[in-house]
Amino acid sequence: MPREPKLDENNSALLTESFRTSLPLPSLLDPGFEDALRHVLSNPGSMVRPRMVHRVGSAYHLDPESAHNVAIALEYFHTASLIFDDLPCMDNALERRGAPCVHVEFGEATAILSALALINRAYALIWRAVAACPQDAQSHITTYIEKRLGVEGLLNGQSLDLHYSTLPHTRETTERVARGKTVSLIRLTLVVPAMLGGAPAREIQLLERIAVCWGLGYQAIDDLKDVLQSTSETGKTAARDELLDRPNIASAVGVCAAVERLERLLHVGDLTLHRLLLRRPALSFLSKLRGDLERELRQVTDSACEMAEEGISRTRS
Amino acid sequence: MPREPKLDENNSALLTESFRTSLPLPSLLDPGFEDALRHVLSNPGSMVRPRMVHRVGSAYHLDPESAHNVAIALEYFHTASLIFDDLPCMDNALERRGAPCVHVEFGEATAILSALALINRAYALIWRAVAACPQDAQSHITTYIEKRLGVEGLLNGQSLDLHYSTLPHTRETTERVARGKTVSLIRLTLVVPAMLGGAPAREIQLLERIAVCWGLGYQAIDDLKDVLQSTSETGKTAARDELLDRPNIASAVGVCAAVERLERLLHVGDLTLHRLLLRRPALSFLSKLRGDLERELRQVTDSACEMAEEGISRTRS
Repeated sequence: MPREPKLDENNSALLTESFRTSLPLPSLLDPGFEDALRHVLSNPGSMVRPRMVHRVGSAYHLDPESAHNVAIALEYFHTASLIFDDLPCMDNALERRGAPCVHVEFGEATAILSALALINRAYALIWRAVAACPQDAQSHITTYIEKRLGVEGLLNGQSLDLHYSTLPHTRETTERVARGKTVSLIRLTLVVPAMLGGAPAREIQLLERIAVCWGLGYQAIDDLKDVLQSTSETGKTAARDELLDRPNIASAVGVCAAVERLERLLHVGDLTLHRLLLRRPALSFLSKLRGDLERELRQVTDSACEMAEEGISRTRS
Repeated sequence: MPREPKLDENNSALLTESFRTSLPLPSLLDPGFEDALRHVLSNPGSMVRPRMVHRVGSAYHLDPESAHNVAIALEYFHTASLIFDDLPCMDNALERRGAPCVHVEFGEATAILSALALINRAYALIWRAVAACPQDAQSHITTYIEKRLGVEGLLNGQSLDLHYSTLPHTRETTERVARGKTVSLIRLTLVVPAMLGGAPAREIQLLERIAVCWGLGYQAIDDLKDVLQSTSETGKTAARDELLDRPNIASAVGVCAAVERLERLLHVGDLTLHRLLLRRPALSFLSKLRGDLERELRQVTDSACEMAEEGISRTRS
């Protein structure tokens, strides 16, 4: 029997190729649709989430094929959500990943159908992974996935984002958006391979808490960069989020309070990570991710300090 | 224990209520999103498909709860496909089921999110039904569902429909569209409850053939009505499909050839139905559906005759 290529979570080329080939295109496919799908499948992201899925799966001895199905499925869900987000009626973006958005290149209708094709395939891939589980564990996992993707998760986050101008601009609101839009996918990435691998409930809980802390943290970092970079670059241009009235925790509560919140989230995340690694040393790759977050945090706090100093200088002069 | 209401496939009120309540709306849902979802869930169709699912399920002793989950799921998939079809970038419809389309009432973005919410929930409901199956039967059923909904089914049909003007206007093309758009859902309706109920492979095959014959037949009847009613009503107004260059078998091959094709499809369907009912008399409700199709066929052939006679009269005068 020929040796199957090893589904190495670190092998980006292999993951990229899997992303491209995990949605088979039938011969009788409408040519316009086929072109759009080939375009989408040839423009993957950085594959950071699929790598994380593999590493979590590996820590719980999940079979590599199931881990791979989940990895590609989540990346398909994410890509589909980006296609929808970029539509004229949503964020109205023109470019994504350095290329024209799908709706710009192929029209809105074909973009929507392409996203739906990814979603259909993603559910099928997830089911394959779930079907390999003991039957009494299946419904718990599928319910979890449904909640993160649906009206309690990703979709609600996107809706709140769209309607933000009608909602109170508070930390709570911006975090409700982030919990939907950003945190849902991170939770799925860390938790689904663990559940499929039969992780104990306590470790699932800890992984969830890390996902929420880091997810909200990543969003807060993004928000702070949006506010701080504009100010430091020009001193005049309003932050893009504020200009477009997009959810932004730093705009909602101010830079200082946002930094405090971020530091608090990372601190809780650190305590949780420590507990988790005592139980599951094989998840030590998470420390490296925490290291990446730390660098981002330093950049943002340095910018915040600069801004504070400039403010003080202007006051004095 | 309180007696559960009987999931009577004939109880339209119960099915309509299930349609309304089978997508639970969480308390933290964005208000704009909630309004749209309530609107969608309160405007169901005729529930003919859910009734069919229950009756097929009953013929194969499928537990009523699973039948019900499939019934509502398929109706959610269908409703979602209508929401997408009505969008400005697709068919650009303004009204549906006697009410403003979702995108007209709530905006395109919220319409899209509502459709995605239905899809997410539909997959979860289908999965519940599949999870109750023996594990070795699960992947066959989920693969079948994936194919009917995805790039080999519904989505390809919709894409071909959108791009029809660029394709040869032949019977083959119009039937490729119909196989995707119309036939996919009928196949799912007849076949999924049978598969879940453990139907023998031969009966699945016969159900599939009936679904294809009647699905193409229903579409041909629709197409013929579009052509014949315009002509008989005004003698001048071009058929709407032809005006908009939409797939229409009668426009593609002419009324006579389309009627011949329709009669051929129904004939093959009849032979198949006969074989199936010998094996599974409990599916006799299908004869009633065939009766409904017969009435439609008579109307259309009567109109075709009228038109032929008018044509002969004009030639003579």
